[in-house]
Amino acid sequence: SRSLNLAVIPGDGIGQEVVAEGLKVLSAVLPQDVKLETKEFDFGARRYHATGETLTDADLDALKAHDAILLGAIGDPSVPSGVLERGFLLKLRFAFDHHVNLRPSKLLPGVATPLAGQPEIDFVVVREGTEGPYTGNGGTIRKGTEHEVATEVSVNTAYGVERVVRDAFARAQARPRKKLTLVHKNNVLTFAGHLWTNIFNQVAAEFPEVTTDYIHVDAATIFLVTDPARFDVIVTDNLFGDIITDLAAAVSGGIGVAASGNINPSGDFPSMFEPVHGSAPDIAGQGKADPTATVLSVALLLRHLGYEGEAARIEEAVSADLAERGGLPARSTSEIGDALAVRVAG
Amino acid sequence: SRSLNLAVIPGDGIGQEVVAEGLKVLSAVLPQDVKLETKEFDFGARRYHATGETLTDADLDALKAHDAILLGAIGDPSVPSGVLERGFLLKLRFAFDHHVNLRPSKLLPGVATPLAGQPEIDFVVVREGTEGPYTGNGGTIRKGTEHEVATEVSVNTAYGVERVVRDAFARAQARPRKKLTLVHKNNVLTFAGHLWTNIFNQVAAEFPEVTTDYIHVDAATIFLVTDPARFDVIVTDNLFGDIITDLAAAVSGGIGVAASGNINPSGDFPSMFEPVHGSAPDIAGQGKADPTATVLSVALLLRHLGYEGEAARIEEAVSADLAERGGLPARSTSEIGDALAVRVAG
Ligand SMILES: CC(C)[C@H](C(=O)O)[C@@H](O)C(=O)O
Ligand SMILES: CC(C)[C@H](C(=O)O)[C@@H](O)C(=O)O
Repeated sequence: SRSLNLAVIPGDGIGQEVVAEGLKVLSAVLPQDVKLETKEFDFGARRYHATGETLTDADLDALKAHDAILLGAIGDPSVPSGVLERGFLLKLRFAFDHHVNLRPSKLLPGVATPLAGQPEIDFVVVREGTEGPYTGNGGTIRKGTEHEVATEVSVNTAYGVERVVRDAFARAQARPRKKLTLVHKNNVLTFAGHLWTNIFNQVAAEFPEVTTDYIHVDAATIFLVTDPARFDVIVTDNLFGDIITDLAAAVSGGIGVAASGNINPSGDFPSMFEPVHGSAPDIAGQGKADPTATVLSVALLLRHLGYEGEAARIEEAVSADLAERGGLPARSTSEIGDALAVRVAG
Repeated sequence: SRSLNLAVIPGDGIGQEVVAEGLKVLSAVLPQDVKLETKEFDFGARRYHATGETLTDADLDALKAHDAILLGAIGDPSVPSGVLERGFLLKLRFAFDHHVNLRPSKLLPGVATPLAGQPEIDFVVVREGTEGPYTGNGGTIRKGTEHEVATEVSVNTAYGVERVVRDAFARAQARPRKKLTLVHKNNVLTFAGHLWTNIFNQVAAEFPEVTTDYIHVDAATIFLVTDPARFDVIVTDNLFGDIITDLAAAVSGGIGVAASGNINPSGDFPSMFEPVHGSAPDIAGQGKADPTATVLSVALLLRHLGYEGEAARIEEAVSADLAERGGLPARSTSEIGDALAVRVAG
């Protein structure tokens, strides 16, 4: 019999609540013969305040012994900005070499969008996850004085760019439209831009069926609101990906339904799946959070582990639920989770 | 009698056409006693192909001897990406220390927006123009090999950040809502982020009437489409400013109406005013380009030089023209310019 050995990190704020629903739906959808084992980790603000620790080497070892990781949200106003982001979230992405940060955007029927009309939106952003301006390179001199200088170094390697570009081409190849757009700012960031553009063009030669184009990141934000249908798969740098995927989430139904995967396709380390939204401390503990983004992240997790049918069942359940939602009275976090669990168990 | 000594750079593509209309409206609005002198410069793709030059020291000297610069657009597909951007546009911004890159966004009555409803949009982005990832610091090793490494260094100084933050506070103070939002990514880019955040908080103490807040750049893109009314004045880094002002233009009527100023408030060098749109080679020479963004850039130019009444007259003319435009047959570039010239002379 098979097993699924899952590390669970509820984290801060609404993380707790949404992860509970994600697990509920996971249990409901998994085939009978798959033994689900979950181990909960207490990372986040509470642990940081209690011990000063965010993510230790021992923690990484413990996490490593799992097939995948499900994360709710990390972050709390009581912790200075950057401490948990750099000390936990980014540390984990870098330690486990999560270089494919996968963020699908699909505007589902019945879902409200801030855009006029009801444009077709169905694209995937492949955001590089381990390089660029996120490396933490840089520093400060003369801190706090009028002569302070602070630098941030974006580091881009052929190795790092090629593997994520290749992954994106493969994903584009597998989709009906087979189109891949590189988003960068190669007219200004010419060093990194040339590296990205050259590698993109090289790898393109191996995927003759994939149509390619290039858009500057500033122009990409325009198209995301005026013509989102032009996008199929997008590959981009870590920081540009951060920015455009929040915008992509906003136009395709909001961060309440935006899922993501921090994927290491090699399998050397477990991949991590999390909603794009944060810990939302203002509504935490009130049963108001929409668990849909977490449930869709569970679908990405299942697909990553080879459970394609189960992933699709979750996505269909979410689609059906959202299509009906307009007509439903407001439901709590767990009511939405229950409804989805019933649907996937179908 | 007064004089206005203007350097004019039509540039590439539609630049020529839209600048002609900008000058038409400028002539029509200027008081009789102001002697307008214009000198045209041939920068852009043609000059680059003919001479290999983009912007020489002699060019900079010649430009310096003017009260202000009006630019159409620079850029052509025949020139490799980055050559004119770094060699002309950014070189000029840096040489003339254009540290206040001013980009107002106002959704005018009758103007189409991709956003549902007709949200209120009336904010100004103050984008830093001489630092950040735009400095051209960085480099490449092992170029073209599988071991290539390319870096981009974002350079941020207390001097550079303070002056633009102070400018933004003063602009917020002068507006009815008196609200200033810092947009950065201080939870990830912690070195630059702390510099920006600390200086922002310090300068805030000098402007007790200004309400302040902070938003990460990724979240800012969400609010720009879900709640643009929350913004009054935004101050941000060079790259974040590049990205969010294209999005801001898109939601507030498109780049056809987005104006900008590259301002050196010290007056040591002339400031430069230009539409946010590019050279649009696909529609160049057809009289199809909308000159409105250039005309609004002329208004910013006039305001910068102290002609507040004339600037306001242009803005009112544009407003009135746009409000009527839905009911008008499609007009050519020069027909729109003529209509605006008549209105401001009105
Ligand atoms: C919280 C932060 C470190 C993170 C990022 O910038 O990657 C978040 O914005 C995201 O997109 O997952
Ligand atoms: C053309 C390019 C160099 C420029 C920039 O990135 O600043 C443009 O996008 C702008 O916003 O003015």
